[in-house]
Amino acid sequence: MSVTAAKGFTAAGIAAGIKANGGPDLALVVNTGPSRAAAGVFTSNRVKAAPVLWSEQVLKGGAVTAVVLNSGGANACTGPRGFQDTHATAEQAAEVLGHHAGEVAVASTGLIGTLLPMDKLLPGVAAAAAELSEHGGEKAAIAIKTTDTVHKTAVATGPGGAWTVGGMAKGAGMLAPGLATMLVVLTTDADVDAGTLDKALRDATRQTFDRVDSDGCMSTNDTVLLLASGASGATPGYADFAEAVRHVCDDLARQLIGDAEGASKDIRIEVVNAATEEDAVEVGRSIARNNLLKCAIHGEDPNWGRVLSAIGTTGAAFEPDALNVAINGVWVCRNGSVGEDRDLVDMRFREVVITADLAAGAQSAVVWTNDLTADYVHENSAYSS
Amino acid sequence: MSVTAAKGFTAAGIAAGIKANGGPDLALVVNTGPSRAAAGVFTSNRVKAAPVLWSEQVLKGGAVTAVVLNSGGANACTGPRGFQDTHATAEQAAEVLGHHAGEVAVASTGLIGTLLPMDKLLPGVAAAAAELSEHGGEKAAIAIKTTDTVHKTAVATGPGGAWTVGGMAKGAGMLAPGLATMLVVLTTDADVDAGTLDKALRDATRQTFDRVDSDGCMSTNDTVLLLASGASGATPGYADFAEAVRHVCDDLARQLIGDAEGASKDIRIEVVNAATEEDAVEVGRSIARNNLLKCAIHGEDPNWGRVLSAIGTTGAAFEPDALNVAINGVWVCRNGSVGEDRDLVDMRFREVVITADLAAGAQSAVVWTNDLTADYVHENSAYSS
Repeated sequence: MSVTAAKGFTAAGIAAGIKANGGPDLALVVNTGPSRAAAGVFTSNRVKAAPVLWSEQVLKGGAVTAVVLNSGGANACTGPRGFQDTHATAEQAAEVLGHHAGEVAVASTGLIGTLLPMDKLLPGVAAAAAELSEHGGEKAAIAIKTTDTVHKTAVATGPGGAWTVGGMAKGAGMLAPGLATMLVVLTTDADVDAGTLDKALRDATRQTFDRVDSDGCMSTNDTVLLLASGASGATPGYADFAEAVRHVCDDLARQLIGDAEGASKDIRIEVVNAATEEDAVEVGRSIARNNLLKCAIHGEDPNWGRVLSAIGTTGAAFEPDALNVAINGVWVCRNGSVGEDRDLVDMRFREVVITADLAAGAQSAVVWTNDLTADYVHENSAYSS
Repeated sequence: MSVTAAKGFTAAGIAAGIKANGGPDLALVVNTGPSRAAAGVFTSNRVKAAPVLWSEQVLKGGAVTAVVLNSGGANACTGPRGFQDTHATAEQAAEVLGHHAGEVAVASTGLIGTLLPMDKLLPGVAAAAAELSEHGGEKAAIAIKTTDTVHKTAVATGPGGAWTVGGMAKGAGMLAPGLATMLVVLTTDADVDAGTLDKALRDATRQTFDRVDSDGCMSTNDTVLLLASGASGATPGYADFAEAVRHVCDDLARQLIGDAEGASKDIRIEVVNAATEEDAVEVGRSIARNNLLKCAIHGEDPNWGRVLSAIGTTGAAFEPDALNVAINGVWVCRNGSVGEDRDLVDMRFREVVITADLAAGAQSAVVWTNDLTADYVHENSAYSS
């Protein structure tokens, strides 16, 4: 599983002492080749962390030999010193691995606005390199957790098992779209060039990670990388490969929502009969970000009026008196007004499906979010203190 | 105080039986003239409640003789029947008062998606008319409360006490800008024509109610009305009058934030040195809507990284490494990086001031919000059940 499911990759996860609690906090993923093709998408937040600024430059070369990831500190809003620290991290990895720093991506996650303890991080990179293993994917996935309660991995294989796509993800809060919304490393042993990787990755993230909106808060550190080793010797057709990448991204995105901070409900928002896909996404996002609705779902209250009030704030094509809304299959709102009896809605299960019918076309989109709970408030009012 | 502070107005507030708990739920405000000039601003939510659709038409005539307001039900998303109910309410008021229904505005607040109990509301209008009094402003303000814990009134007088502007407001949740964000009735005994009232009201709401963003959720029922009786016989200069209206709106807006659902902190967001006022408002709004920051403030945690991540999602003019942020006067972020010691920030008091310096110009704006608390979650997960 994870980033070592595909051939041609080693990984490690260790406790370097970055986190105060002594837990695993440093991961290393290495592409042993023969190919080093890679693609990446990054946060669209204009305030970007130092490792994002660094890795964006690395990815322009289309090749990555190693990725260093740390939890316990985002290295965001840390000024020139923060960027120097990221650079030093890449140099350290390059030195112990015998590669070029220009092919080492770096990703960090944790509190914004504090410098990383480089006296612990740099020796940690060397220690992680010493533990690299073809079975290290699980430990790497564990080492990138912050408030995640579980580590997240996924895998898909091509026709006949000729090639594999695997991956790991972290993310539980500050989770909202903007190209990508978390740290994710995907690996494949398929032989795919950097341009094709880039297209497959953007196609996949647009429909998966970009449609996860846990709390409307876009991170400064979002990074999704896709590394290809070519070690299987197989060159897949684009459609098969893109579908495998999309599948792994979708699986990981679903796991992120399932582990969102404080959540007790996973909410699947299906917007149907929209004039355009963009309209469907805009409406889905607006519903996903409505705090009042998220509280209502937490209380197992099928409060469809809050769905309509959220739709009404968008610019999507619709007529208010043609809107229909179902919650868990019960059409509680028809033609913009009272529909079936709301008491018929069964909301006992964790997954809740809200269907918003815009009656304006034939396009659709799914956006995932979660409920808003007292636990979310508690967790995030005490995070940095 | 309230809507009867100005001469030429009577008001009443009664319990008509609309609310299940038997509390006051129906208010009536009557302009006894001699002038009936009026202006109104309404929610920009495209899903508009029946009373909003009705009152928008009434206000096009520039004259209002009476306003019927009810709590206990929003009459939103109620279809043709809901609109008929609003119409019948206006007709009832017109009949008992001896006026035209076309000059009766209606405003409703409460749960979306349920029809009003007209068998209680219509007799209630007659009962309220029988209680109309020049001292009824307080009772009217009490009757429009929903989750408000206190009623809100404000007053301002012109030079030498020649004329008065008074008002009442309700609003505690689903409180975010969109021209107006709550039910507000302002009255004045100044002799001002409808066009001037409209300009003064729009100028005022743009800088006051429009810059209150409690929970990012825009209502379907927002209504702000300004009624002039001319009973003082005084015709104020525009600047004096506009300032009085702005003062009353600002006072009421501040009271709304102070009573926001579940809030324990009132947060004043000052965006300074912006390239344009629009930039300043966009940045202020983005900060105000950041759930993670709102949780942090609840925890008295000066987590400025969340301020920067919110600024980074906007299109405003700024350079990330030129941003400065102060919390309660301590510049915890300078030049996009770590500034003064965050432990210097004293957050024990209810009011918290966040200053965001965009270092991009000379414009500024203030946006108010409040913290996000477990009490907000609790109140809104149990509201309709």
